Amino acid sequence: MASVRNARVVFSEIPQGVPDPQRSVKYDESELIDLDNVPLNGGFLAKAVALSIDPYMRNRMREAHIVQRFSPFLLGKPLVNYGVGRVIRSEHPGIKPGDYFHRKDLSFQEYSVIPDLSDVYVLTNEQKLPWTLYCGVAGMAGQTAWMGWHEYAAPKPGDVCFVTAAGGPVGSFVIQLAKAAGCKVVASAGSADKLQFARECGADVVFNYKTASTADVLQQEGPVNIYWDNVGGTSLDAALAHSANSARFIECGMISTINGESPHVKNLGMIVGNDLKVFGFIVGTLLPRYEDAFYGEVPRLVAEGKIRYREDVKKGLQYVGQAIYEVQTGGNKGKSVISLE
Amino acid sequence: MASVRNARVVFSEIPQGVPDPQRSVKYDESELIDLDNVPLNGGFLAKAVALSIDPYMRNRMREAHIVQRFSPFLLGKPLVNYGVGRVIRSEHPGIKPGDYFHRKDLSFQEYSVIPDLSDVYVLTNEQKLPWTLYCGVAGMAGQTAWMGWHEYAAPKPGDVCFVTAAGGPVGSFVIQLAKAAGCKVVASAGSADKLQFARECGADVVFNYKTASTADVLQQEGPVNIYWDNVGGTSLDAALAHSANSARFIECGMISTINGESPHVKNLGMIVGNDLKVFGFIVGTLLPRYEDAFYGEVPRLVAEGKIRYREDVKKGLQYVGQAIYEVQTGGNKGKSVISLE
Repeated sequence: MASVRNARVVFSEIPQGVPDPQRSVKYDESELIDLDNVPLNGGFLAKAVALSIDPYMRNRMREAHIVQRFSPFLLGKPLVNYGVGRVIRSEHPGIKPGDYFHRKDLSFQEYSVIPDLSDVYVLTNEQKLPWTLYCGVAGMAGQTAWMGWHEYAAPKPGDVCFVTAAGGPVGSFVIQLAKAAGCKVVASAGSADKLQFARECGADVVFNYKTASTADVLQQEGPVNIYWDNVGGTSLDAALAHSANSARFIECGMISTINGESPHVKNLGMIVGNDLKVFGFIVGTLLPRYEDAFYGEVPRLVAEGKIRYREDVKKGLQYVGQAIYEVQTGGNKGKSVISLE
Repeated sequence: MASVRNARVVFSEIPQGVPDPQRSVKYDESELIDLDNVPLNGGFLAKAVALSIDPYMRNRMREAHIVQRFSPFLLGKPLVNYGVGRVIRSEHPGIKPGDYFHRKDLSFQEYSVIPDLSDVYVLTNEQKLPWTLYCGVAGMAGQTAWMGWHEYAAPKPGDVCFVTAAGGPVGSFVIQLAKAAGCKVVASAGSADKLQFARECGADVVFNYKTASTADVLQQEGPVNIYWDNVGGTSLDAALAHSANSARFIECGMISTINGESPHVKNLGMIVGNDLKVFGFIVGTLLPRYEDAFYGEVPRLVAEGKIRYREDVKKGLQYVGQAIYEVQTGGNKGKSVISLE
């Protein structure tokens, strides 16, 4: 068989501030691949099915010498991120053609040779969910909400839970977990559409952080027993100021700091004074303990319609730059996913 | 018997910034007490033996309407803090004349009637230690170091432990706990004298944060697995920037913020990115679980000379204002205690 196109998205420029969708990444159709004959060396050949676009990807768009938890994207090389793939050929006994899987770092190209099963999780998908959902509510975003909540929230009925970026894939899931645990949920987001969705997910109080003072809302509705932080900055500062004794702060993300800014958080002293526990986490560290429990429960609940979610699916690798930009600026309407099928 | 003097120290003015020792508190000898006849109403009469002077007391010198974990001092009323007392008369079956005890809030006056045994812990002192030590290495300061370390540090041999205010009563004890656990200890303080003591306690690397860059030292000696924070601000920021993955930050105090300032901490994003766990704590919340174990071990080790400590004892209530000022500005040489015997 002749070689076929292997379209890809490469990292082309380290951004200053918010990534410019036209400059930071480039869609490239120049590569070819011979699907029948490309050497596998004991690994397997996979086609990308769905690729997740997430806020933290901005952290990987950095100078390669800067050491952080996640390796940097390399200039001229394809982006990598959490994604779902389908096996085309395999020399590995643990996975066979036709299997679907997710992998922590799947290359942003149509076809990849993967050397082994590290970070690969084979998906059975008994509920026949759309594969894009395995990048969202049943993928890394859902895992982040579900595993972080189970590990750190320690909810008690009546606890006040403040959720930021509440219309997003993680926040909206957290709202539902908090309501199921009997919490009162206060939710913030940056648009009427997102607030409406947060309300549909069960939030008791919703407000737009751009037009209302977070501190004033929490003064009224708090003190806060559980703070789910996706944003840092002003929201974190207000949650500190209005924290309950021994509150749990779940630090899932700080989008307000990710593009080079660092808002001045003035109430850090409350961490000591109010006996706060502040849990930064990366879902990867929780995955080994929770993965089987998550897949045993969440896809079934999604299939039964018991978990609300929204997706923002773009079809084709050529939309990766735009999707990254929207996720950094709040323009996406639901979990951002690139679909290739 | 005629009434005797009941000298006391009252809270006289809410300070702006660092408390002025001449204005914030007043020593007052005008009160009298009839030791034989003062009504006990089922409680007991005690003489103050030793009173602890601690950094956090600044938080209590505030407007009474501001709600924080610790109740405010009341203008015109005696200060209260952790202290050791001796029972003179008792109507309570759980405590008898001659018993020594510590109490979380003992009044800053020579004699007090205490209504019951809440927050009272009777001290056996089998090792015949000086009573002032029960305000220091065998008291709240020692409890803070010992209990906080056991609850949150999770040390592994070879871990880098960065200790701030390392010449103080908490920091110097933490150094010894960290060394006993096989850690490499990096210690900062603000004077040559304190650094010398930190070195004697076993610190591997010591530096003066006023003349050396904490970030530079941690860049060289880190990354930091365990950060014992007594100061917040610049030290916290540097520890965040040079944190190891999954490091533990033990937030014992933030003296840099206590007098109304709030230094801009720019690296909070590392809490998420480096999977950090940040444990604010108040020793009172750990006390119920750890108190018996602490008293079973620490006084014996102190008597055997196995724990280094330094005291800065002032004899007499008239020195309370000066002692508070020194603790806020780093002028004390060891655990600050007011002795009344």
